[in-house]
Parts: sequence; C-alpha cells; structure tokens
Amino acid sequence: MNSNQTIVKMVFDRWYGSIKNWDTLLNSITDAQLQKEIAAGKNRGIYLLGHLIAVHDDMLLLLNMGNKLYPELHEPFLKSADKAIAQIPSAKELRAHWSMQCEVLRQKMESLKPEEWFEKHTAVPAEDFIKEPHRNKLNIIITRTTHLAYHTGQLVLLK
Amino acid sequence: MNSNQTIVKMVFDRWYGSIKNWDTLLNSITDAQLQKEIAAGKNRGIYLLGHLIAVHDDMLLLLNMGNKLYPELHEPFLKSADKAIAQIPSAKELRAHWSMQCEVLRQKMESLKPEEWFEKHTAVPAEDFIKEPHRNKLNIIITRTTHLAYHTGQLVLLK
Repeated sequence: MNSNQTIVKMVFDRWYGSIKNWDTLLNSITDAQLQKEIAAGKNRGIYLLGHLIAVHDDMLLLLNMGNKLYPELHEPFLKSADKAIAQIPSAKELRAHWSMQCEVLRQKMESLKPEEWFEKHTAVPAEDFIKEPHRNKLNIIITRTTHLAYHTGQLVLLK
Repeated sequence: MNSNQTIVKMVFDRWYGSIKNWDTLLNSITDAQLQKEIAAGKNRGIYLLGHLIAVHDDMLLLLNMGNKLYPELHEPFLKSADKAIAQIPSAKELRAHWSMQCEVLRQKMESLKPEEWFEKHTAVPAEDFIKEPHRNKLNIIITRTTHLAYHTGQLVLLK
C-alpha cells in the first residue's frame, strides 16, 4: 500500500465511520423526536437532517460527480434558518433522501482511484491549484467529515 | 510540496481550524454560562472543556510526546460522567490548562517532519502496523479533530 492509498483510506475510514455514527443515531430516533429542538430555542432535528443532505448534495458539484440529487433542499436547509420556511419535507421523506444520497455518494466515491483524490475540486481555479495543491477533492471529504461530526454532537441530544 | 507534505498540511489545517473554532467560541462564553447544561439534563459546558483537555492529554501518550500535563483530569472528565464528581477545577483553571495544552501540543507537533506522521502511534503493536499502516500518528490527529468538532457543536448551544 503506497502513501496515497494509506491516506485516502484514513480519510475515508473517518468519513464512513462518521456517516455510520449519524445513521445509527438517526435510526434510534423517532420521527416525533426529530420534530423537537436539540436544545431550547435551537434547530430541530429534522432541520439538521435536511441541512446535511443539502450540504452533501453540494459535494457532488465540488467533486465533479454530477448534479445535485435534491436541489429543492438548498433553500429551506442551507439558505434559510430553521422554522423560517413552514413547508419542508416530512421526516420520512428526508430519511429516504439521506439513505439514497449516501448510497449514490458511496458509489461515485469508490469509482475514483487514490491519486484522483489529489486532483483539484471544482471551486478552485487551476492557476491557484498550482500553488495550493491541498485544495483537492480529498480535502472536501476532510472538511465535510468535521461538519458531519459537529451536527452529530447536536442530534445526539434528542436521545 | 510532495504528497506527504500536502496531506499533513490538509490534516493540520483542519485540526488547527477546529481548535480555533473552539477557542473563538470558548472566549465568547462566560464562566457562568459554562456552568450550564448544553441542553436540559445533558453535560455542562465546563465538563466538555475538561473532557477535551483529558482527551488531548492522551494524545501526548499516543504520539509518544511525553507525559500528560493534567493526569488529574482523567478521573473526573474521562472516567466519570458529568456531575458524578462534585469537586472539579474552576472554569478559570480549565481555561488556563486548555491554553497551555494547546501551546504545548502545537510546539511538539511542529517538531515532527511530515514523514514522521506516518510512523505508528504507541497503541498499535509493531507487528500489526506492518499490515495496517493507516494506524499512524496522523490518524490520531484525524480522529481527534472529529471528536473536537462533535463537542464544538454542543458547546455552541450555550450561546
């Protein structure tokens, strides 16, 4: 196993481990619990779920892996704060979107070779990438893993 | 910049970025706020602070960087749940410990060359490391970064 393979494995072990932590937690929480705020006056569980799907949809664009699966979630879960928009999908729908998205992301991610993760992501100009090679696709996985962990620390409070 | 340098930079950008997020947040929270629970019936802010110091102290051992700075925090903040032990350090003391520890960790971490981060950490036997080269020092930084992000998502609820 060369160095690139090793580091890609390290990053993806943490990504998939964090996805699994969220999944296990989400599956232990009822739809009724998801409607509750994680703390008094803060975001509801259902908002966090929609927010993660919207953020991970953006990863498809950043990683040059096609279009968003659920572009309609951008407005209510990324652009707007919780409770700003009354009409949002049900917990049941969002759970289904989440599972589908995880599977699509997994398939697309597994199709890349280790060295391809060190190529630039779509939001960095080619001329900048020459001087900033760390702004690669793998870095998108690293930053979204801590984002996921941050919100997992919040969802757990519904238990 | 070779591949090892790039990946070490990526991991440390995320580590120091997460430390900074926590610091900025901690500095915006009063000692009185730290005594509050992050959500009804959950951990207090001060427990999260002590817990992080105890976990990062363990990193010194795992990274073969000397002894713990605050071994007395293991019992109240790692082995015990919040409120199980009545006598804990003050918020003022823990803030000072946190700052000191961040500085010591930073100095020790910066003394390692990129390739040294791919050496095994102290909790993995040499014979296992041959087959599992991902169980290296850099992986300790990756896993502790998501741990830090998880609890930052909780501390922010005190605001």
